[in-house]
Amino acid sequence: MPDKHKRVVAIGGGTGLANLLRVLKELTPELTAVVAVTDDGGSSGKLRKEFGILPPGDVRNCLVALSDAELAMDGLLSYRFPEEGTLSGHTVGNILLAALQQAEGLDFAGAVARLSNLLAITGRVLPATCDDVCLAAVLEDGSVMHGETAICADSRRVKKLFLQPENCRLQPEVLAAVAAADYVFIGPGSVYSSLITNLLVPGLAQALKQSPAKVCYLANMATEPAELDTAELSFVYDLLESYAGEGRLIDVIIANNGAYPETALAALAARKSRPIVCDTAKLEVAGVHILQADFVDEVNFWQHDRVKLKTALAGLLGE
Amino acid sequence: MPDKHKRVVAIGGGTGLANLLRVLKELTPELTAVVAVTDDGGSSGKLRKEFGILPPGDVRNCLVALSDAELAMDGLLSYRFPEEGTLSGHTVGNILLAALQQAEGLDFAGAVARLSNLLAITGRVLPATCDDVCLAAVLEDGSVMHGETAICADSRRVKKLFLQPENCRLQPEVLAAVAAADYVFIGPGSVYSSLITNLLVPGLAQALKQSPAKVCYLANMATEPAELDTAELSFVYDLLESYAGEGRLIDVIIANNGAYPETALAALAARKSRPIVCDTAKLEVAGVHILQADFVDEVNFWQHDRVKLKTALAGLLGE
Repeated sequence: MPDKHKRVVAIGGGTGLANLLRVLKELTPELTAVVAVTDDGGSSGKLRKEFGILPPGDVRNCLVALSDAELAMDGLLSYRFPEEGTLSGHTVGNILLAALQQAEGLDFAGAVARLSNLLAITGRVLPATCDDVCLAAVLEDGSVMHGETAICADSRRVKKLFLQPENCRLQPEVLAAVAAADYVFIGPGSVYSSLITNLLVPGLAQALKQSPAKVCYLANMATEPAELDTAELSFVYDLLESYAGEGRLIDVIIANNGAYPETALAALAARKSRPIVCDTAKLEVAGVHILQADFVDEVNFWQHDRVKLKTALAGLLGE
Repeated sequence: MPDKHKRVVAIGGGTGLANLLRVLKELTPELTAVVAVTDDGGSSGKLRKEFGILPPGDVRNCLVALSDAELAMDGLLSYRFPEEGTLSGHTVGNILLAALQQAEGLDFAGAVARLSNLLAITGRVLPATCDDVCLAAVLEDGSVMHGETAICADSRRVKKLFLQPENCRLQPEVLAAVAAADYVFIGPGSVYSSLITNLLVPGLAQALKQSPAKVCYLANMATEPAELDTAELSFVYDLLESYAGEGRLIDVIIANNGAYPETALAALAARKSRPIVCDTAKLEVAGVHILQADFVDEVNFWQHDRVKLKTALAGLLGE
């Protein structure tokens, strides 16, 4: 008898993935998060540089999102010590992930698994790779730039992203999770530093294409400031497909069709962001299935409204 | 029907109390540790100064000693980050206790209770007071010195210890635990900074004298370097009684009568320490009961051998 719970893999990074996990954990316990590991800024970057570990921040956000509500660890794990003090602006969760590796000689995935266990989380969290990788880019003028933070801060257009080293090893459990999945969600999140950086890990895109899972790109609500020139979804779709090599990666695009109030548009504009445009005609030419719904959040215009998202995803998973 | 488990309170600080707790937790789950809070050195001192919190180090040692072996949190909680790095030589347990107070707005006892809960510890750990107290001393030359670390480092003799503020409030749960106890253990530990500093908290000595519990002073194995001029137990006994006011505090003294090998004596001498001398005749004049056994540890000459201590305490509690 098949498991009645759908098996879901969510791929991304940053706060986008953590927000999606909060919705998905209410729909299925068979949940695997695959997290980007190329962050090199802030507390994560400092710990990475000092201890030679992978950046813990995005993983920590996922663990908090999936942690047991009864333990109420979110406030503690996300607590950030003052920047100028003796604990240098680190969060407790980042400190724990660094300490588990140092104290118990675990690799990053091992430390994440140990903390997951302590927190009794729903599902599991996997780094895309345990190798020490860095995001790099060839820019429009042909120069090469190293480091996610530097690339995202640079005003020049990115021509091509790549990982250093290029031959980093996909975390083996990711392969198994993707092969067994019913649904895979890519996004929401920064297209460069949360999505493509994962697709660049050798073997992941191939595994996604070979998996029987329905691969869904959950599009952002608004553009990431200073990332892409366009707000058109077909552009992001083409970009993701171009990094996935031969054959179709994405089966479904899930996009917002709710209208933003004027105040939201002004708030977005003030942050040099604008709503993503679902250019359906172009996407239909590409043959991808499009699932549209109103996901507008009345408070946080950059995120999906969680209740609306849950309704849509429940429909999709229950189809 | 009375509880078949003996109710035990252990009062102290430093590593002495933690070592005793490791033995006691195998004898009874009805265990309360009362921990000194005047430490102002090292990681504890830094956190104390920066966050205005009580020193977490001694409490952390107790939590580790009482934590669930299955969770195997001891390595993580005791892990100390490099002194020169971005985490300033703090231990993970100290960081967690500091963060719990900042992130969740708890007082020190509340943070300790919360962490105790997360660690599923046997028994419980109580700070002697939640007030921000400092140990102070009048020295032999009449000068007044503030701070435990400074007092212990000074070569001048201590004439009288006191707390600042003197009217700090005994943690209420300590009163209840002492009143309900069958046995109370004071020590082992530094006479000044682990024992007297607790007895100075107003109400504790009085509660100990009023309690039906048998109050046992578990004497150190060897002198604390640069603390007292004498190794005679009757001196320490008189000193503790003098800080407890009118009426008898200590019912039983538990002392080592095992002989030290020559190598141990040399090792002690190299650290300006020597074995405690149980001057039975003088103690008998005072009317205190003396329980002697061989507690010599073949490896760590400063501590009680845990197996030998467990045998003696099992005999005492089962009498």
